[in-house]
Amino acid sequence: MLGLPKGSLEESTIALFAKAGWKITKSSRSYKPSIDDDELDGRFVRAQEISRYVEQGFFDCGLTGYDWILENSSDVVEVCDLIYSKATALKSRWVICVKEDSEIKTVKDLEGKRVATELMNVTKKFLQDNGVNADVEFSWGATEVKVPDLVDAIADITETGSSLRANNLRIIDTMLYTNTKLIANKKAWEDPAKRAKIESIALLLQSALDAGTKVGLKMNLPKANLAKVIAELPALRKPTVSQLSDPAWVAVETIVEEKVVRDLVPVLKANEAEGIVEYPLNKVIA
Amino acid sequence: MLGLPKGSLEESTIALFAKAGWKITKSSRSYKPSIDDDELDGRFVRAQEISRYVEQGFFDCGLTGYDWILENSSDVVEVCDLIYSKATALKSRWVICVKEDSEIKTVKDLEGKRVATELMNVTKKFLQDNGVNADVEFSWGATEVKVPDLVDAIADITETGSSLRANNLRIIDTMLYTNTKLIANKKAWEDPAKRAKIESIALLLQSALDAGTKVGLKMNLPKANLAKVIAELPALRKPTVSQLSDPAWVAVETIVEEKVVRDLVPVLKANEAEGIVEYPLNKVIA
Amino acid sequence: MLGLPKGSLEESTIALFAKAGWKITKSSRSYKPSIDDDELDGRFVRAQEISRYVEQGFFDCGLTGYDWILENSSDVVEVCDLIYSKATALKSRWVICVKEDSEIKTVKDLEGKRVATELMNVTKKFLQDNGVNADVEFSWGATEVKVPDLVDAIADITETGSSLRANNLRIIDTMLYTNTKLIANKKAWEDPAKRAKIESIALLLQSALDAGTKVGLKMNLPKANLAKVIAELPALRKPTVSQLSDPAWVAVETIVEEKVVRDLVPVLKANEAEGIVEYPLNKVIA
Amino acid sequence: MLGLPKGSLEESTIALFAKAGWKITKSSRSYKPSIDDDELDGRFVRAQEISRYVEQGFFDCGLTGYDWILENSSDVVEVCDLIYSKATALKSRWVICVKEDSEIKTVKDLEGKRVATELMNVTKKFLQDNGVNADVEFSWGATEVKVPDLVDAIADITETGSSLRANNLRIIDTMLYTNTKLIANKKAWEDPAKRAKIESIALLLQSALDAGTKVGLKMNLPKANLAKVIAELPALRKPTVSQLSDPAWVAVETIVEEKVVRDLVPVLKANEAEGIVEYPLNKVIA
Amino acid sequence: MLGLPKGSLEESTIALFAKAGWKITKSSRSYKPSIDDDELDGRFVRAQEISRYVEQGFFDCGLTGYDWILENSSDVVEVCDLIYSKATALKSRWVICVKEDSEIKTVKDLEGKRVATELMNVTKKFLQDNGVNADVEFSWGATEVKVPDLVDAIADITETGSSLRANNLRIIDTMLYTNTKLIANKKAWEDPAKRAKIESIALLLQSALDAGTKVGLKMNLPKANLAKVIAELPALRKPTVSQLSDPAWVAVETIVEEKVVRDLVPVLKANEAEGIVEYPLNKVIA
Amino acid sequence: MLGLPKGSLEESTIALFAKAGWKITKSSRSYKPSIDDDELDGRFVRAQEISRYVEQGFFDCGLTGYDWILENSSDVVEVCDLIYSKATALKSRWVICVKEDSEIKTVKDLEGKRVATELMNVTKKFLQDNGVNADVEFSWGATEVKVPDLVDAIADITETGSSLRANNLRIIDTMLYTNTKLIANKKAWEDPAKRAKIESIALLLQSALDAGTKVGLKMNLPKANLAKVIAELPALRKPTVSQLSDPAWVAVETIVEEKVVRDLVPVLKANEAEGIVEYPLNKVIA
Repeated sequence: MLGLPKGSLEESTIALFAKAGWKITKSSRSYKPSIDDDELDGRFVRAQEISRYVEQGFFDCGLTGYDWILENSSDVVEVCDLIYSKATALKSRWVICVKEDSEIKTVKDLEGKRVATELMNVTKKFLQDNGVNADVEFSWGATEVKVPDLVDAIADITETGSSLRANNLRIIDTMLYTNTKLIANKKAWEDPAKRAKIESIALLLQSALDAGTKVGLKMNLPKANLAKVIAELPALRKPTVSQLSDPAWVAVETIVEEKVVRDLVPVLKANEAEGIVEYPLNKVIA
Repeated sequence: MLGLPKGSLEESTIALFAKAGWKITKSSRSYKPSIDDDELDGRFVRAQEISRYVEQGFFDCGLTGYDWILENSSDVVEVCDLIYSKATALKSRWVICVKEDSEIKTVKDLEGKRVATELMNVTKKFLQDNGVNADVEFSWGATEVKVPDLVDAIADITETGSSLRANNLRIIDTMLYTNTKLIANKKAWEDPAKRAKIESIALLLQSALDAGTKVGLKMNLPKANLAKVIAELPALRKPTVSQLSDPAWVAVETIVEEKVVRDLVPVLKANEAEGIVEYPLNKVIA
Repeated sequence: MLGLPKGSLEESTIALFAKAGWKITKSSRSYKPSIDDDELDGRFVRAQEISRYVEQGFFDCGLTGYDWILENSSDVVEVCDLIYSKATALKSRWVICVKEDSEIKTVKDLEGKRVATELMNVTKKFLQDNGVNADVEFSWGATEVKVPDLVDAIADITETGSSLRANNLRIIDTMLYTNTKLIANKKAWEDPAKRAKIESIALLLQSALDAGTKVGLKMNLPKANLAKVIAELPALRKPTVSQLSDPAWVAVETIVEEKVVRDLVPVLKANEAEGIVEYPLNKVIA
Repeated sequence: MLGLPKGSLEESTIALFAKAGWKITKSSRSYKPSIDDDELDGRFVRAQEISRYVEQGFFDCGLTGYDWILENSSDVVEVCDLIYSKATALKSRWVICVKEDSEIKTVKDLEGKRVATELMNVTKKFLQDNGVNADVEFSWGATEVKVPDLVDAIADITETGSSLRANNLRIIDTMLYTNTKLIANKKAWEDPAKRAKIESIALLLQSALDAGTKVGLKMNLPKANLAKVIAELPALRKPTVSQLSDPAWVAVETIVEEKVVRDLVPVLKANEAEGIVEYPLNKVIA
Repeated sequence: MLGLPKGSLEESTIALFAKAGWKITKSSRSYKPSIDDDELDGRFVRAQEISRYVEQGFFDCGLTGYDWILENSSDVVEVCDLIYSKATALKSRWVICVKEDSEIKTVKDLEGKRVATELMNVTKKFLQDNGVNADVEFSWGATEVKVPDLVDAIADITETGSSLRANNLRIIDTMLYTNTKLIANKKAWEDPAKRAKIESIALLLQSALDAGTKVGLKMNLPKANLAKVIAELPALRKPTVSQLSDPAWVAVETIVEEKVVRDLVPVLKANEAEGIVEYPLNKVIA
Repeated sequence: MLGLPKGSLEESTIALFAKAGWKITKSSRSYKPSIDDDELDGRFVRAQEISRYVEQGFFDCGLTGYDWILENSSDVVEVCDLIYSKATALKSRWVICVKEDSEIKTVKDLEGKRVATELMNVTKKFLQDNGVNADVEFSWGATEVKVPDLVDAIADITETGSSLRANNLRIIDTMLYTNTKLIANKKAWEDPAKRAKIESIALLLQSALDAGTKVGLKMNLPKANLAKVIAELPALRKPTVSQLSDPAWVAVETIVEEKVVRDLVPVLKANEAEGIVEYPLNKVIA
């Protein structure tokens, strides 16, 4: 059984599996989606709970955040990172924040203060590791508005920091970097059939994620310029080169990061490349 | 300072205060609304946390559910009930449910089982009071789908039971009936100025709620039939009667439950009432 | 049992019953709403079918259009008209239309032609009554676009004619004026208890509809001017007049069409009326 | 002919006329709405242009802002103010703003600078009146983002200043306070029939606006307390008092600002008022 | 002229033609879309009516369901199946249903009962073929809620049966499997130019549909492993193999069902395939 | 700095840059988007103002319409056309229109008339060039409804003319054809580094636009038929031909207009092409 994160990651998880080749169909009112693979039986539960149920063996594997694996101290196999559904290329992190004009400057200054957070255990351990004695209280949400009226500091998740800035908060320390992971139950991982299936899911999810930032590029090139182009453009990596009917020309095809195409094209044109086209990809197998 | 429930009750709370005579204007990105009353300073926080902050004195008073007052064991003054934002006239209650075809029939059968709930303390106490030893785990949401795959039973809130039925759940016991309350901090309640203000808020919120189910009814009636009509229709209660210019007729005006009008009208017409009109009300002061 | 029209009239029917004093709560996925009156059990079905089920006795009464009563040749009691959910004060009517530049000028010119309509029986009878032999075919919708490619004429419903004009159609004749009616099964109508209930529904639905176009108007008036004002303003009808504490003044209160207030006010002011206010009504019992 | 403001005020203008007693029905694709009054023929055009067309006599009267009357130097009759469609009770004003950290402190510092605005003529005149020589350029919109990259200062409209603060702008001066007005063409105003109609429109629009902030309040009061209550509560103004059948009691009814009810109620209760109810109003004729 | 289904299939039909290479632009208020092909003139009408108009020759061809071809007994050419706009891979079918707890078990038990359906003729014929005499009545919609109050059974369309289950209905028999078809008028089909056009439309619509479930797959493979891979993976069918510049490697490219990629990839990797990428397709010509 | 058009072109401009390889991320409340290219700093301003700021050197380059370059008489470099965000393949144009039944037939008949337009300078110059003396007034919007009540004619922009027809307007002359252009400041254009960057932007924006109407087409072909196919199908242009492992077959790949595929496919099949597939493109470098 496969644990899938319900809530903010739900739609992007379904989209990712679709690109990887599995159609997950939600049924209304039920947490049991249908998946077009007889070997897979999925359940949507909160990301916060998935590592618990994977550890206990209710799920063989699941997708959840590294933060909640730590919070639950779950003893599971971390199969691979799956970095998706983020606005930017920055990593998400849990930070400790105070009001911009607070006198609290470092984690040490939290001694004897009140801290609100959704990530109770991680926060308590972080303070303890820093030798700080503080009152940590559970926050049911909207944590970022609680300073300074209700608490002195908060521990919250952020990516770009824009929500923190909008609330006039200042980061004093980072507790943790986190991202989504595919995790597995330890027993399931020892079972060869289950492990092969989990590895196959990992491979295809990653190939779908890779295809999101990569594109195919093909062009015809005078054979004479081939070596020079490849030397000048390391981004082309190991292109597939095939002879065209015209003996003076070769067809060159490769996979590149979409971002670099805008820099490659002027160089390729300068080297007499013709018929340059970029096309989209569904999967790129590493 | 006044604690207001953020989330599902947010809009209906703002609407209730508007009917009572206070305009609460939310500012984007902030939990600090503006209120057109210099004596009131509001904060939107989760209903789960309000009783805690009222008890600790961060808020003088607040609106929250009876369930969360119990869950937090908060020592506060319960000023009045405020029954709003409900689809039906039924009371909400926290119930223990199992799958329809489960062998668990009573709370006693939960011995040694796993129960998921958002209301940890109340549930633990309820089981203990029933002499039952069970494993209670915190549920981050979507609790109703967890039986029977992940837990044996759940403790969840319900009004009509329709969501439970849709998930094929059977109620085995009721732990608690609950509704929204206005609560006050004990010190604030002893301060005469604060108490007067809190009582005034209670009075006007209740008068606005009352006006939601009541209407004004007026008509002209032959003086000769007045006594008979009042005797026949206790729902009219103490009507305001005034003499019309025509000495044979009186004007009768009263406030009644909107629901009974459909039954009153035929009787009034049978007693020669004329010009019967029903009009809406904003407030009805008890 | 009460037949309620599903579809375009559904929401306005629920709103009308709410104003009349009955709360109809739709349940998703079911045509069986709950009504807060133990004596009423409703069913939502298509307006086209209601008269059929009322005639057959499945429903004691129902709301449907006069057009579909005729189309189904249903033998039912027409209790009262209920004119609601219309953009204008015009009556809806079924008309025969042709393309603006068609050579067909009158119904007689339809001899041997093709006519599309949703109202087959009424259309066939209308043509027959006019001595015309034409091919009438059932239209599943979007009837107004079928001329001239697929048929020569159509019989369709219209209120202001704007949809017809937008399709460059010209009306050549009117078959029928129609509006919503409350109808009753003949046997149910003979049963005194059922009839009393149906008449009570009729009375309250009509009083709610009346309140939609009427308002309450009250003012204080010098006693000396009272007779003159009433003589000048027949729209005031029979006002309720009561003596104020000041012997020179009376309070005057009446129900008028909302539309005439804009004309009454200048005359009232010219007659020294003071404190003129207009207030909304929920019900006006005829 | 009546000029109505197209755009942001369009819906609230239609709503205001509806409360005043005129139903304005927009036709799609046309600026010529239908109005249910044979004496009125409306046109929706931009608020910026209405005073121009009223002055030229294309419209007899119209609704537009005071700012655009000035901008167009239109020679028209200002019939009355109509304060509606605003979030707060503050007046809108046109202000000159610079970036918060700009060295420009007063309008004098704009000498030789670039100023962007939609209100070209008013801005030029304001600068000239202050003896300042600056380059004023027309802004097609989004004026507040142009400082400091494209211009040194802007002249823009604001109510609460929140959009200015969000763009880190500082107000250095106020050019003009503005609100919506009903204006009339000078010739039309001299024509008695047209003037009577325009005055009647003004009266009813204002009575509808007044009804938005006022409510009706009624109660029964021991006759003995009447004088005291009226003395204590000037907000009650001149209430309508009528004798009830019970000689010891009077019915008191009055119109008050909705805002004061929350303060009146405790005093009224202290004076033994019974059956206090507040009801909504459609129109309050001044 | 081409008949296109108005209503639930409208948007997906336009999308299908777009993928096939024709841009259909709807004009508001008209059923006559513009198509960027001088040889095609389309009309949107209800799917229920299309086969009628194709048979009568108003349309040369059209898209409609097999069910309505049968219902109308239309004598037309069925050019090809077009299976689109469905949630699942299951075929839609018309079934006869009763309430779950009904005593009716087989079609034989319908003798003397009432059956409601939108598909009158097919249902009557089906009952007759089964030797059953029952009362079949036309249902204007919401057929599934009519049992058991108004009728004993219904004949309705279903794909997954989930709507039937939600209404507690039990299927007792299947009358008909159905899907969308391209149909042609018999005379048009005999006209070589029209037939060529219709066949070309059929070919391109099908190639667009095929591209929806298929993808391109390419990789580089050690020449030595080519034969083995092709033998092991019949899903690769006839791949396009070309020699790369490096004589030990070939480029392999093929079109496969998107669904099988998740199973192919592990095998390909095991055979030393490199640079495996999957890319999307617009059309796959059979 | 790069000027980007705020408003109706905003989203399609962001989408175009995304296809070209630049991610533009709007920040709320600011006109300063972030772009993932350190060499680019963008600003969103109204299209009407961009040429002004490019000419003045506030922006090095920008996207705006040819019409506003002319209206502002901006002295800038027109780098390339960028034809996007249009419903049809027709060019947008500014036309002079009158009411359908107007006596004005040609631009000459505008002598002494009133003309409303948003494009004041172009209109004045056009009339002057035609020797016409007319009163041109600035229109703040909804220009097409102003004839004939407020002005005699208008100068407005149109693509298909459908909005004009809907307002019963007749075009009497065309002032100008227009489309979006990439423009550059003259000084920036002389700076080699800036010019190279601007040319690179132009190249990639155009390649992204080209990819919107083009597709990749590949197939296997008997070598024997290759010459014939290329001769018959000039749309195939210069295909990339490579030898397959089977010596009798070649792989043919080319880029064609998506529109012609529907005509190519039947011819290709007639020439024994196999495995014809069409695939989408992101960029086609000219």
